[in-house]
Amino acid sequence: MDFKKIEYQKLLNFTCEIMKGLGYPQSQAEIASKVLVEADARGIPSHGVARLAFYKKNIDGNFTVPEAEPEIVHETPVSVVVDGKNGIGPYISKVTVEKCLEKAQQSGVCFGSVRNSNHFGIAGFWAELAARKDMIGMAFTNTRRCGIVTGGRERLLGTNPIAVAIPRDGGEPFLLDMATTTVAHGKIEVYDRRNKEMPLGWAVDEKGKDTTDAHHIEGLFKDRQGGYGGHLYLGGEGEMLGGHKGYGLGLLVELLCAGLSLGRWSKHTFEGEGSGTTHFFAAFRLDLFGNANDIKKHIDSILTDIQNSEKADGYDRIYIHGEKEWENRERAMKEGISLDPATCMLLQDFAQTFNIANPLH
Amino acid sequence: MDFKKIEYQKLLNFTCEIMKGLGYPQSQAEIASKVLVEADARGIPSHGVARLAFYKKNIDGNFTVPEAEPEIVHETPVSVVVDGKNGIGPYISKVTVEKCLEKAQQSGVCFGSVRNSNHFGIAGFWAELAARKDMIGMAFTNTRRCGIVTGGRERLLGTNPIAVAIPRDGGEPFLLDMATTTVAHGKIEVYDRRNKEMPLGWAVDEKGKDTTDAHHIEGLFKDRQGGYGGHLYLGGEGEMLGGHKGYGLGLLVELLCAGLSLGRWSKHTFEGEGSGTTHFFAAFRLDLFGNANDIKKHIDSILTDIQNSEKADGYDRIYIHGEKEWENRERAMKEGISLDPATCMLLQDFAQTFNIANPLH
Repeated sequence: MDFKKIEYQKLLNFTCEIMKGLGYPQSQAEIASKVLVEADARGIPSHGVARLAFYKKNIDGNFTVPEAEPEIVHETPVSVVVDGKNGIGPYISKVTVEKCLEKAQQSGVCFGSVRNSNHFGIAGFWAELAARKDMIGMAFTNTRRCGIVTGGRERLLGTNPIAVAIPRDGGEPFLLDMATTTVAHGKIEVYDRRNKEMPLGWAVDEKGKDTTDAHHIEGLFKDRQGGYGGHLYLGGEGEMLGGHKGYGLGLLVELLCAGLSLGRWSKHTFEGEGSGTTHFFAAFRLDLFGNANDIKKHIDSILTDIQNSEKADGYDRIYIHGEKEWENRERAMKEGISLDPATCMLLQDFAQTFNIANPLH
Repeated sequence: MDFKKIEYQKLLNFTCEIMKGLGYPQSQAEIASKVLVEADARGIPSHGVARLAFYKKNIDGNFTVPEAEPEIVHETPVSVVVDGKNGIGPYISKVTVEKCLEKAQQSGVCFGSVRNSNHFGIAGFWAELAARKDMIGMAFTNTRRCGIVTGGRERLLGTNPIAVAIPRDGGEPFLLDMATTTVAHGKIEVYDRRNKEMPLGWAVDEKGKDTTDAHHIEGLFKDRQGGYGGHLYLGGEGEMLGGHKGYGLGLLVELLCAGLSLGRWSKHTFEGEGSGTTHFFAAFRLDLFGNANDIKKHIDSILTDIQNSEKADGYDRIYIHGEKEWENRERAMKEGISLDPATCMLLQDFAQTFNIANPLH
């Protein structure tokens, strides 16, 4: 098979039908499909429809209760705490973020704290929703354990991404969406497959020692009895390049997500019933600080100055965070979303299994 | 001169007298002295009383109006926007954070946005105040321009620190306080003085190229007409080790501080009247999410598990952020604060100039 291109809406419908085939109810399948297809459209295939395999595994492994309805267990005018009941991450997140935006519209700000959820897709998707309403949006999540703290060797924390969206005038929002680990796990997998040495600063072995051996690290992750060695946080091993700061950011995300929700921290996700993933959201209105349009113009002027500033040797462009993804999305809406051969194969298999017409021809 | 030890309270009184000698009114001098002495007590001498030289320079250079009273220019039940009128950073921050805590006590949460301020000392000092009241506290600030964005070569953003304090049960709060640049400027100065090569990842030259030459970078900073070359953000040059993420964090701080306050961004601080430094604060109550004691216990259990987890080869301890500083402070309260010879000399000179009794004997 080759790479194939498919229209956004067609891929969305197709993905939704597969989700329903897997056993997800209509509302859950709709939002989960949307988050996956958005990732592909933005050029983040690691979080795209290829993840349907993971959604199947979540059902097969009993980590997910597809029909579960999230329950609000605590709320104030500026907060909502949600028990996801081991349901679908994107569905739980949609319910929570919509409640947050509604409350923030009233109160100016709202926080959403979620326990007993599952993977919610690209964090930026949730932060962006607030930015579309002249608010600053934030979304954080913990994950399976995979990261090593400074001075440690056990996998304790997750990739623990930080996403923040800030609206600008006359353009797409600033959208920072970053794992607090140096790289996402997919990057180590690629180096493993291609027999390449990783740079120092991505991972440590079971003794906590910096390593370039991608095969070895992949082996440690496959050893389910183990739990030693794994990802480093931004800044790498030790303190020389700020590894303790990256670890601090990962831990901050963990405390906001698992701590405030009284949920499971990454060390204990995927143990027992459900994955137990936790999230933290925030939305607050620009007009808490004055005229929202003035603020958006000021933000735009800062970002424009940075974009227009002088380039380093070897660079012809300076990017604002989110810019590459917005441009990818624009292209995908015109030219279709490009899917790699393995993903096309996966979708075709699902189409056959569930007897769904395959639009990928 | 040698290192000297001095009691906390004595150093506080002495520093306050010097501040008043420099022309700062009583209230301004009190809080500014407190922030400086706290830094020394916590083992962060780069932000300690040695900064009195900088406070003098700020007055001499007309960046500061010592007697200025900050003005609240906008407020809601969950926000306060303050124009610092080029007054003293710690005084403006105290007024703003106290207002934030008062409003958060009422509304559950409050944000503080500040323009036309000056250096506010250690960011963690301001975040901590909320944690002492069962709240999560955040403090951010921009600075003079010193940092290079990914793909750029002009100094545009500041060291732009992030501070977050989260209370735990039965112990001092988690207190992350980090420059978003790989290192604080003081570290480059030390390598310059000691004729040492810096690690790659700290700084780039005037062409935006990664360099280990501390002399050269110091030279660029001394060339006031220039403005090329400077600090890298966490993750270093390019994207291989996540430098674009560190740049994203630095930019996030810039947008929250300068963007929301309609103030000057780092590129334009110390141009014209005042330094134009901007800050952003947040405080929100733990009980927005349920029983505050339960949450603090849960947070403590996560942090304790991390502290007790297995160590990497060559490490005998895993630290939680803030822990080193709390231990330094405890020691300083028992044994006195240790000041290096250059700082003792500086204080002695001020004592002579202003005819103040010098307790450093």
